[in-house]
Amino acid sequence: MQVLRLHCDDKAGIVAAVATALSNNQCNIEESSQFHDPSSNQFYMRLVFTPLEDGCLKSFTERFEKISHDFSMTWKICDVSQKLKTLLMVSQYDHCLNDILYRWRTNQLPIDITAVISNHENTKDLIQGHNLPFYFLPVKNKNEQENQVRKIIEETNSELVVLARYMQILSEDFCSDFSGRVINIHHSFLPGFKGARPYHQAYDRGVKIIGATAHFATADLDEGPIITQDIVPVDHSFTPQKMQTIGQDTESRVLAKAVKLYAERRIFSHGNRTIIL
Amino acid sequence: MQVLRLHCDDKAGIVAAVATALSNNQCNIEESSQFHDPSSNQFYMRLVFTPLEDGCLKSFTERFEKISHDFSMTWKICDVSQKLKTLLMVSQYDHCLNDILYRWRTNQLPIDITAVISNHENTKDLIQGHNLPFYFLPVKNKNEQENQVRKIIEETNSELVVLARYMQILSEDFCSDFSGRVINIHHSFLPGFKGARPYHQAYDRGVKIIGATAHFATADLDEGPIITQDIVPVDHSFTPQKMQTIGQDTESRVLAKAVKLYAERRIFSHGNRTIIL
Amino acid sequence: MQVLRLHCDDKAGIVAAVATALSNNQCNIEESSQFHDPSSNQFYMRLVFTPLEDGCLKSFTERFEKISHDFSMTWKICDVSQKLKTLLMVSQYDHCLNDILYRWRTNQLPIDITAVISNHENTKDLIQGHNLPFYFLPVKNKNEQENQVRKIIEETNSELVVLARYMQILSEDFCSDFSGRVINIHHSFLPGFKGARPYHQAYDRGVKIIGATAHFATADLDEGPIITQDIVPVDHSFTPQKMQTIGQDTESRVLAKAVKLYAERRIFSHGNRTIIL
Amino acid sequence: MQVLRLHCDDKAGIVAAVATALSNNQCNIEESSQFHDPSSNQFYMRLVFTPLEDGCLKSFTERFEKISHDFSMTWKICDVSQKLKTLLMVSQYDHCLNDILYRWRTNQLPIDITAVISNHENTKDLIQGHNLPFYFLPVKNKNEQENQVRKIIEETNSELVVLARYMQILSEDFCSDFSGRVINIHHSFLPGFKGARPYHQAYDRGVKIIGATAHFATADLDEGPIITQDIVPVDHSFTPQKMQTIGQDTESRVLAKAVKLYAERRIFSHGNRTIIL
Repeated sequence: MQVLRLHCDDKAGIVAAVATALSNNQCNIEESSQFHDPSSNQFYMRLVFTPLEDGCLKSFTERFEKISHDFSMTWKICDVSQKLKTLLMVSQYDHCLNDILYRWRTNQLPIDITAVISNHENTKDLIQGHNLPFYFLPVKNKNEQENQVRKIIEETNSELVVLARYMQILSEDFCSDFSGRVINIHHSFLPGFKGARPYHQAYDRGVKIIGATAHFATADLDEGPIITQDIVPVDHSFTPQKMQTIGQDTESRVLAKAVKLYAERRIFSHGNRTIIL
Repeated sequence: MQVLRLHCDDKAGIVAAVATALSNNQCNIEESSQFHDPSSNQFYMRLVFTPLEDGCLKSFTERFEKISHDFSMTWKICDVSQKLKTLLMVSQYDHCLNDILYRWRTNQLPIDITAVISNHENTKDLIQGHNLPFYFLPVKNKNEQENQVRKIIEETNSELVVLARYMQILSEDFCSDFSGRVINIHHSFLPGFKGARPYHQAYDRGVKIIGATAHFATADLDEGPIITQDIVPVDHSFTPQKMQTIGQDTESRVLAKAVKLYAERRIFSHGNRTIIL
Repeated sequence: MQVLRLHCDDKAGIVAAVATALSNNQCNIEESSQFHDPSSNQFYMRLVFTPLEDGCLKSFTERFEKISHDFSMTWKICDVSQKLKTLLMVSQYDHCLNDILYRWRTNQLPIDITAVISNHENTKDLIQGHNLPFYFLPVKNKNEQENQVRKIIEETNSELVVLARYMQILSEDFCSDFSGRVINIHHSFLPGFKGARPYHQAYDRGVKIIGATAHFATADLDEGPIITQDIVPVDHSFTPQKMQTIGQDTESRVLAKAVKLYAERRIFSHGNRTIIL
Repeated sequence: MQVLRLHCDDKAGIVAAVATALSNNQCNIEESSQFHDPSSNQFYMRLVFTPLEDGCLKSFTERFEKISHDFSMTWKICDVSQKLKTLLMVSQYDHCLNDILYRWRTNQLPIDITAVISNHENTKDLIQGHNLPFYFLPVKNKNEQENQVRKIIEETNSELVVLARYMQILSEDFCSDFSGRVINIHHSFLPGFKGARPYHQAYDRGVKIIGATAHFATADLDEGPIITQDIVPVDHSFTPQKMQTIGQDTESRVLAKAVKLYAERRIFSHGNRTIIL
């Protein structure tokens, strides 16, 4: 099975052209979702299809290249069986890491973990116990450290970088160079409580619900396009510590969901908004 | 704007045929969702489209009739501006009724209420205050009463009948004659607590969550295809009465959602399951 | 049945003193909840009790006055059957108003609605249809208008003022004079999206969940102590208008819940936080 | 800190007696919750308190023994720092096990895991990697196997047995002998879909929400007192397999919550209902 994702200005005839090309080249549609955004006049589509015969995928792709040119599409075709090469970065808290490792190990997340980078050493044994490469990169010189990260991304061909509670701020250059390829989990319901110690902020404000937000990392801290969010109710008896404990479940769940959506090639971005098909 | 809904055996070329017919007849797709059900090999599609010129709708419909024949489709095209003619039936509890009336009055539900039938008189003033026809039909002779209901459905051309906490059981014949056109709200999270007094059953079983279920009425009580469900947490301090009070909000919300989905022509049924596009 | 609410510095012996006074004066405890806040060293308690004999309530109250003095308590005893006198203020959107009226009419909210004030006339018929006093107070001169509001509060002995989507900002003096007695509903998940047009702000930020917040009105707009909050998921297809429609249910539910908590004398405030017992 | 839990027929003077005994013996109340059940006339209370001086706990306990006798109480005092000795039983699916191990390892669950028993060997390495005793007990002869389980419970002094997706049915005798000490997770929203393959049952019935239920094991399969439940929405595109994958998160969360409530000594049972304080 193949995934086709495409995006272009909305015009008449797109769906007809794509569906006809698939049909004429013996490719069966298994799943399809699309979004016509009237506010921006953009069209987004994600299709899962099965080429029924040898050579179909090649002939469809050739035909589709012509169509995509006519409609000025941004597009990609990926083999579903090809797992997403994913690099994990983590600091001291390892609940999100543990959760992703479990889902990866039990085939719930269609990813290949290429390596784990941390600025702490506490997760080293866990990672190596899973036979995964572990890189201890403390942040003395930020530039230098980021260069090492870049090198690891390159060497491992990682398509996605997941900040699984990685508590260092990435440089503007890094965020811009890997735009749309770095997912961060923030432990608040954004846009509330950006920055440091969100559970303490939540406690001080006296909110009755706390949350977590998975978003693409951008140069503006905690301002990138939101992928998914979830919440959990709290009451007056919750100290910041108790919020932190209960919030960890939400963080793990939200981050895992975002990584899954990404790995299934469902996420499109437009400005500060995401379209999830 | 028009809604096209269609349903047929899943085959190659359906989407291509439909999209091409729309495109060739100057009809713009605004929204589209579809479902390929691998377990039953059925295909379901709902499209919202705008004919761009006079005569487009007619020419598309003519072309589409041919296509639908080729693929043995069940289909319908409806004008979005044409509100769904809806008959309400209610007994003593009027929370769902009040909720639907409010949403109807504030244009949140694209329905025309044709009449309200009740086996009690307590809502008469409320209904007539909204300038709606009210029929008081007590159930002395069930056959006779159902004949009157049938007559009202016919005379008012009602497409949908909403049982907004109507506490009488409809006959097998009635359910079968109006199959897929009668929505009931049951005040439990089905399949738990079918039948009478579900909140008392929930209390006795000691559940920690209660719910409500909107479903199509069938001859088997509380067994019809489920359209939507929602829940609310409870704890040991909830008596059946307290459950009833808090549950009313869930019932109203769930029923309103089901009516909206129906009015927007989003619901398909297959055996005991619904597909919501 | 009576409700006793009390609040004081946390010390040893409070519960013993209160429970003994009740027990010695033939008063039966029906419900009791309490909160020892370690961070502020405050103690909060809410008790529902039944005096078993004539004169018990009087003798308990006399005894309790002595106790409350010893512990420097802030306290109140209210008869449960005494409904809370509540003034509603509303602007053009009437979904919260409609919801409160329904719950009031069906005895789900233990309040007496004393009057409804609006700066618009569109809800006049609805209010008068419920045989409630309606005051049309447009805001030409803010001072003058607030004086009229103050006069109505006084004349009707209203204990609580509910801003049921009242879209005018109250003066600092008004908020301070009626501190802890004015509940506002804000149509966002605070602290996100304060101020005007929160659904448009939510759309622009691309959040995946929207919410509503009931809080005490203070001079700082949308900054008062939060009573309760709730949320509803949205996706990329939600325009600000669609958010508004779906958000109305959440707003109504959240406001009704806050009014119920207040009417049942469950809410305590400490700085910017509420304790709900 | 100490936890006092007690339960007796509801009468006047209980709270006064307990609170006075604590106060007179220099014990400070930190947390307190109680429930007067009018339907059964039972009283339940859970208190967390700190003895302020040496000997206080002893003198309070002596005094309390007298009180508990007067009111015919069932009661227990436990040291909060004393972790609950917990035995885990598991079959092939290890998501609940993995979740409990993580929470135990990060001190989120106040339990000591005494051992893990499985009728499969697949989790052996995981368990031994955590330096925990692993017992492989396949079920050839049920009686014999249960006797081994009984022996392990006894030797390890386990107070609680957690069936973390243990897919074997325990005998009536076993359930009765360990009544109120065995928590099971069932992967449906009980009372819906008891017995085998609940996700397949849920699929066949076409529900729109699936759930999980943690309950005390009793001789009647899936009929024991419910401790906690949670749900997750599904739609027509969910196959039983997809339900299973998404449901695992709910199962893990629900079971962990139940174990935490138990370890914190918050759960009381009355017939088929639980009171959680």
